[in-house]
Amino acid sequence: MKQDTKYKILEAGAEIVHRKGFNHTGIKEILDAAQVPKGSFYFYFKNKEDFGLHLIDYFEEYFSNIIKDIFNDSSLSPLEKIRTLLSTSKEHFKSMDYCCGCPIGNLAQEMGDLSPAFQARLKKSVDSMADYYREILLQAREAGEISEKLDIKEASHFIVFAWHGALTHMKIAKSAEPLEIQERFIFDYILKP
Amino acid sequence: MKQDTKYKILEAGAEIVHRKGFNHTGIKEILDAAQVPKGSFYFYFKNKEDFGLHLIDYFEEYFSNIIKDIFNDSSLSPLEKIRTLLSTSKEHFKSMDYCCGCPIGNLAQEMGDLSPAFQARLKKSVDSMADYYREILLQAREAGEISEKLDIKEASHFIVFAWHGALTHMKIAKSAEPLEIQERFIFDYILKP
Repeated sequence: MKQDTKYKILEAGAEIVHRKGFNHTGIKEILDAAQVPKGSFYFYFKNKEDFGLHLIDYFEEYFSNIIKDIFNDSSLSPLEKIRTLLSTSKEHFKSMDYCCGCPIGNLAQEMGDLSPAFQARLKKSVDSMADYYREILLQAREAGEISEKLDIKEASHFIVFAWHGALTHMKIAKSAEPLEIQERFIFDYILKP
Repeated sequence: MKQDTKYKILEAGAEIVHRKGFNHTGIKEILDAAQVPKGSFYFYFKNKEDFGLHLIDYFEEYFSNIIKDIFNDSSLSPLEKIRTLLSTSKEHFKSMDYCCGCPIGNLAQEMGDLSPAFQARLKKSVDSMADYYREILLQAREAGEISEKLDIKEASHFIVFAWHGALTHMKIAKSAEPLEIQERFIFDYILKP
């Protein structure tokens, strides 16, 4: 039951922080949305920063599950897995009218300079996203889908940050165009035999 | 004299907003840093949003001057101009201990969903950055430095958002590595004959 309350706070907080940013979201606003007793926050979290670090765990688990579902689909070739992840994400953002972007990328931009604890935790999170790509790119090389010459470690980081940049531009373009350009350039120029 | 006060507010505001974000910066904090009378803010700006829109003009002018200085240097080839802009930026961020990132990219991420006025103004700003690249890439094509097949309009947008993504990752890596990866991938895979 206690864990339910903690989860409710994280779930409500995730939705508001994703939309409005971390500093722009108040604790009271989160507790109102979660419909939990006012005192619960400090029972589960030391302070707002501690809550933010738990929120990164929450987002990371959420994305890991989506990525794993697609990347473990053995009916797809390695590059088809990446294409599926990108098109699934594009559909998701279309349904959200191209708002919000990636919560991890957003927090990196917003909190990277303001809290060393956030900075270290977000670096770990971005590295773990790149690790998912790295594994798939190793499989893609094995399958002859990409060049032997490609530096897979660097490529995996490049894909993640170009994706974060495309999402930032999506928020002001209010269209899928930046995501489509990202996809075309990654596949036409980098992920090819 | 009046314009001096307005400029002082924008200059102080630019420094704080660049470091802390727009929503996380208070008007009082800006006026204290600018050392101008408390009443001046609403003499020059209708409200905080109006101030933010003027701040985008301020940042845009600042970057336009840097870009024009480099891109008008006729001793450099078109691609050398882009390399010089990227290496100048990298040195700049090194001197800032890899903090802050691009103010326009930051505001796009932070404000793109929260204010239609910001969204439209930031889209215009990002388009104008892409236009600078577009012009140089046309020259690079003319000079045979890049492939005839490259879609220059899309490439110019890709370079700008991959750059914004690299800067976001720089803030959490606290190193030049994301900027170096960005540079290598752009030149090794996209901007080549």
